[in-house]
Amino acid sequence: MFAVEVSDHIMIAHSFRGAVFGPAQALHGATFVVSAAFMAESLDANGIVVDIGRAFDVLKTVLNPLNYRNLDEIPEFKDVNTTTEYLTKHVFEQLAGAVRDDRLGRNGREIAVIRVTVAESPSARAWYEAPVW
Amino acid sequence: MFAVEVSDHIMIAHSFRGAVFGPAQALHGATFVVSAAFMAESLDANGIVVDIGRAFDVLKTVLNPLNYRNLDEIPEFKDVNTTTEYLTKHVFEQLAGAVRDDRLGRNGREIAVIRVTVAESPSARAWYEAPVW
Amino acid sequence: MFAVEVSDHIMIAHSFRGAVFGPAQALHGATFVVSAAFMAESLDANGIVVDIGRAFDVLKTVLNPLNYRNLDEIPEFKDVNTTTEYLTKHVFEQLAGAVRDDRLGRNGREIAVIRVTVAESPSARAWYEAPVW
Amino acid sequence: MFAVEVSDHIMIAHSFRGAVFGPAQALHGATFVVSAAFMAESLDANGIVVDIGRAFDVLKTVLNPLNYRNLDEIPEFKDVNTTTEYLTKHVFEQLAGAVRDDRLGRNGREIAVIRVTVAESPSARAWYEAPVW
Amino acid sequence: MFAVEVSDHIMIAHSFRGAVFGPAQALHGATFVVSAAFMAESLDANGIVVDIGRAFDVLKTVLNPLNYRNLDEIPEFKDVNTTTEYLTKHVFEQLAGAVRDDRLGRNGREIAVIRVTVAESPSARAWYEAPVW
Amino acid sequence: MFAVEVSDHIMIAHSFRGAVFGPAQALHGATFVVSAAFMAESLDANGIVVDIGRAFDVLKTVLNPLNYRNLDEIPEFKDVNTTTEYLTKHVFEQLAGAVRDDRLGRNGREIAVIRVTVAESPSARAWYEAPVW
Repeated sequence: MFAVEVSDHIMIAHSFRGAVFGPAQALHGATFVVSAAFMAESLDANGIVVDIGRAFDVLKTVLNPLNYRNLDEIPEFKDVNTTTEYLTKHVFEQLAGAVRDDRLGRNGREIAVIRVTVAESPSARAWYEAPVW
Repeated sequence: MFAVEVSDHIMIAHSFRGAVFGPAQALHGATFVVSAAFMAESLDANGIVVDIGRAFDVLKTVLNPLNYRNLDEIPEFKDVNTTTEYLTKHVFEQLAGAVRDDRLGRNGREIAVIRVTVAESPSARAWYEAPVW
Repeated sequence: MFAVEVSDHIMIAHSFRGAVFGPAQALHGATFVVSAAFMAESLDANGIVVDIGRAFDVLKTVLNPLNYRNLDEIPEFKDVNTTTEYLTKHVFEQLAGAVRDDRLGRNGREIAVIRVTVAESPSARAWYEAPVW
Repeated sequence: MFAVEVSDHIMIAHSFRGAVFGPAQALHGATFVVSAAFMAESLDANGIVVDIGRAFDVLKTVLNPLNYRNLDEIPEFKDVNTTTEYLTKHVFEQLAGAVRDDRLGRNGREIAVIRVTVAESPSARAWYEAPVW
Repeated sequence: MFAVEVSDHIMIAHSFRGAVFGPAQALHGATFVVSAAFMAESLDANGIVVDIGRAFDVLKTVLNPLNYRNLDEIPEFKDVNTTTEYLTKHVFEQLAGAVRDDRLGRNGREIAVIRVTVAESPSARAWYEAPVW
Repeated sequence: MFAVEVSDHIMIAHSFRGAVFGPAQALHGATFVVSAAFMAESLDANGIVVDIGRAFDVLKTVLNPLNYRNLDEIPEFKDVNTTTEYLTKHVFEQLAGAVRDDRLGRNGREIAVIRVTVAESPSARAWYEAPVW
């Protein structure tokens, strides 16, 4: 399996509900370094998994509505904890949609798997990996 | 599959037996940066894989008996080479035990896989990944 | 000149006032990786600049009131923008105070300079360096 | 599954054919940080996946013909785009050959999988992972 | 002294003249990670050294004519070796010009020093630091 | 001022004497990532600070007697604590000697300053910087 992975970052505020979160129940924030890996069984005729320029653009498009925001105020996240884990799947769903819509510059059917990794600090990170189809 | 990974480090001395190790047969040492990834098919009701605070605590508890030690003098390691690879599985076994005992703050049955990565230098690392059950 | 530097991190929310900040005028957040370097002309009798364990403790003590907080709500910061640059000096002042009070485990007079570096993302960071005395 | 991974780097020039590459159609270059992971179900009698010294040597031997070269001028690459993805598989094939020839200091049959990761910048990387046999 | 530092990267080809360069006399290439640090004695009324958004823009403007290029073909570099060291000063001169022309969003007279760091690989880097005025 | 910096690493065992070291009084070890920066006011006729290949070789020559060793058993270190700080100056002295003996491929008089940085873990490092002459 081949993979191409690109990274970007966002700076957000949020708070969590639940005693398990301890001090992170208060409004705080994070720099999230987000990496998106697109995986395919074979390279296309150009010798690539996907156009890396488009991969950067699609990732930025997905992250833009979150960047410099208080996630607590985004209606879509009203009933959830926007944990690092939760966000990995949120980004995955958006990227998988872009792949299915052929927005990565390649027949989306040829992209098998996406893995989204979100690093919240030098010592903690989360990822979500699943088939696109 | 979701994963949450936390990292810590230890500073140990040890030596190896076997011509394959060359100069590393002498007593030397290492800073081991140890990362523990816990993987689950779904998030719990709080939106997490495991309580990250407990993950840090359990990892520290597992690493503590090794930190600032000469591994050659620890009875458990008397008959083995405490290679980077060997230690990945040693840490895995301890963490898997903690998961099975529900010490990560979640029903251990819901944690499917653990991967332990140990980096010994900027240019070399090892990992061990296996199902918990 | 000798230096010893230790690092820790905090996760905070804040907002900025001033058109220059563009989208960062909204409430957002950051993971700040904070490094504190203590510099001295000579090592002490133990062969160290300062006790590295105390350096970690003092840094954590300085960062603790900021961690998991919305900096906009801390009275001390009411009239300022808590920019990365601003925070470098805030941490410096606290650390310099600790050095002057001999809380680093060495006669504070022997510590000449402190540099505080705060990384806000993989592509941006700030620092403040000044004499302690 | 156990893995041991070693890293090295090369500095190359090349150009790409195809409108998808935009400005990268011009002759440019890259520092490629190449990591080779060897995976096995069990450790050998010494407690290792493979001799890490041999792993470094074999990786260097594979990379040496590419280092400080214009890849456009290497006959083997005449009809292909030497993309980051393409190179991951090129290195994989060479390493898999070394494993099959028992050049890693262990019965090659005991090495199950190789993954080659090539980082082209702090924000982009590719990998190829496949069974050796 | 306060400093703010931003980073970007370019991918270039070039060759060197002189026996000291050994195999690097051949056409090869590099990913250069370029960091620009702007230093000032005091923060401005907004609490910043310079507008970090402008710092990123100015750095990108300076790097753009070099990115995806064969430096051997750029007339300005015809008679020089475009070593990592040489490029640190080339970027410095461009950035210092931007500061002197008040293009960083602050009276250029208030920026005292610039340091440009260029990393060519995980194990080698160069920098140039000098007063702006 | 120009600088060129190269990095390598060693894996050593040692112990410390003095209550200030707490658990590090026991025999333990470290991976030390050692960076050597050579600084000069001007580039030479080739456009370099020093021959980077020689810089790597000289650094390796200096580190080699320490690598895979128990520093407690090296006569030169019999009466000292081989702290990270102490080792920065030890390496500095060896490198300064090499510069003064013109072993860096340039008239040693033209190298003004050396800085040696030793990272012992992701969260702690030390450096020593001084004029060569």
